[in-house]
Amino acid sequence: MQKFQMTVLGCGSAVPTSWHSPSGQLVQHHNRQFLIDCGEGTQMQMIRYKVKQTNLNHIFISHLHGDHYFGLIGLMNTLHLMHREKPLHVFAPKDLYEIIHTQLRLSETTLHYPFELHPLEDYKKGATLYENEYMKVTLFPLKHSIAVWGFLFREKTMPPNIDKAFVKRYRPTIKQIHEIKSGADFTIPGGKLIKNEQITIPAPLPRSFAYCSDTAWLESTAHFVKGVNLLYHESTFDNSREELANITLHSTAAQAARVGLKSGAKKLLLGHYSARFKKDIEILQQEAREIFPESYLSNEGETYDI
Amino acid sequence: MQKFQMTVLGCGSAVPTSWHSPSGQLVQHHNRQFLIDCGEGTQMQMIRYKVKQTNLNHIFISHLHGDHYFGLIGLMNTLHLMHREKPLHVFAPKDLYEIIHTQLRLSETTLHYPFELHPLEDYKKGATLYENEYMKVTLFPLKHSIAVWGFLFREKTMPPNIDKAFVKRYRPTIKQIHEIKSGADFTIPGGKLIKNEQITIPAPLPRSFAYCSDTAWLESTAHFVKGVNLLYHESTFDNSREELANITLHSTAAQAARVGLKSGAKKLLLGHYSARFKKDIEILQQEAREIFPESYLSNEGETYDI
Repeated sequence: MQKFQMTVLGCGSAVPTSWHSPSGQLVQHHNRQFLIDCGEGTQMQMIRYKVKQTNLNHIFISHLHGDHYFGLIGLMNTLHLMHREKPLHVFAPKDLYEIIHTQLRLSETTLHYPFELHPLEDYKKGATLYENEYMKVTLFPLKHSIAVWGFLFREKTMPPNIDKAFVKRYRPTIKQIHEIKSGADFTIPGGKLIKNEQITIPAPLPRSFAYCSDTAWLESTAHFVKGVNLLYHESTFDNSREELANITLHSTAAQAARVGLKSGAKKLLLGHYSARFKKDIEILQQEAREIFPESYLSNEGETYDI
Repeated sequence: MQKFQMTVLGCGSAVPTSWHSPSGQLVQHHNRQFLIDCGEGTQMQMIRYKVKQTNLNHIFISHLHGDHYFGLIGLMNTLHLMHREKPLHVFAPKDLYEIIHTQLRLSETTLHYPFELHPLEDYKKGATLYENEYMKVTLFPLKHSIAVWGFLFREKTMPPNIDKAFVKRYRPTIKQIHEIKSGADFTIPGGKLIKNEQITIPAPLPRSFAYCSDTAWLESTAHFVKGVNLLYHESTFDNSREELANITLHSTAAQAARVGLKSGAKKLLLGHYSARFKKDIEILQQEAREIFPESYLSNEGETYDI
């Protein structure tokens, strides 16, 4: 099975603390890396947690609050100083273009590599931002004080594998292999038919990961992230601050858990913790588990299998 | 004697490493704090080294290369979220205004406090940027690939203190005290004159600190920082990379030491180390000491008395 993991680089909210960095997550699928959000210090967190930037070609920025993008210019500058030449694709709100280019222009920097900004405003909800042979990344709307999007990483349904003993015995042609993978039965010399299900092993079920931050509780989110293996949903506050969550358009842990429950997610990761939580952060997990038992606190530097 | 200290928050150069952060220094004089440069992560370094932001009202940005300013927007955003209301004075190249305001505008942020940008281009060399009862900050030109300035923090010459035993015995009036502090002699009842030097104790010699980064070796620097108690001068490279230093308009440790020697500084602190130095960084101190024995490596988190 191909590697499909997510590493938390920062799970704090807007005010940095000595115990949490602002938002940043690295998704690794097979040999590709994807960065979601890039708060201040994300590149240092990548160094700290030994994340190599070599295979990083795609960055997704959920919205233009600083704790989700202030680190991008620094990371881009480092890639420039390291003489990167490959294009860097950044999927972000359109205004990020002006933010980045203003700084490049005023520091008289001409990047060694192409910087391709793909404005999220250009995509319909559910549209595909990125796709390769094995998986794709789509976007969906969230609800915050400025425009914000969630991202869904979903593997494609792969064709079944063919039984090795069968291949060794009957040596099917390449054409026949393709046909079997597409569902065809196989006729052995002598005319006897072997059913497709007898000679194939179904591919692993497609896995998926969804990122939802920042957002108020939103009815439609469960629909977009239906059945994901791993759901990251912001939980800035605990139940006692539900009103504050509503005013600031953030979520409580319990609201995040309701999305987990309603979507049928396998597992929920909490994060984007308010700076006021330190040792008492367990309360978020407790409140979430009352609604959705498979709720967990995300921790910086930890890697989660999807 | 009033507190006059400098704390190194970051002494690496443009590419961050796990062992160094980009440029940032906190100067503390009496009950005032001043920040010089603000590379990415400076606010986290302030948290790490327990620097409170309460008395920080003045920030000095030497130039607009990212490793000297990328952290400013994050720090400013945090001050905003902490409901700061006092003005923040930033002395920086004029283009910083556009960089900050572009981001505030596009993230729909209206700061709770006045942000006062004082463009360094508006000042003549040697001019005073900031002044209070006890000290002042002036600027001087450095030489780099874009416009860059150095900063000099210098205490004022304070009037002498009056001998306590004299005060107790002869109880001079407030007016007489001012006259004595200004150099006047004192006539005791009966007409006998006591010479000023017999009843005064000279104030401590004014202390000074100079910050020079980034810069190529520059003849005039020694003149501007003449006799400083503590000189911070960038030393990005060692002797073997002098040519690279010349091309990139940075300094070697030996060139920094020449400024130390020529200026008559009491002590030189090296910094802005290239990412290539790690355990072998001692070479910079060795090469500097061959020219100027009072040369030291600066270390993050360390506080230096001036």
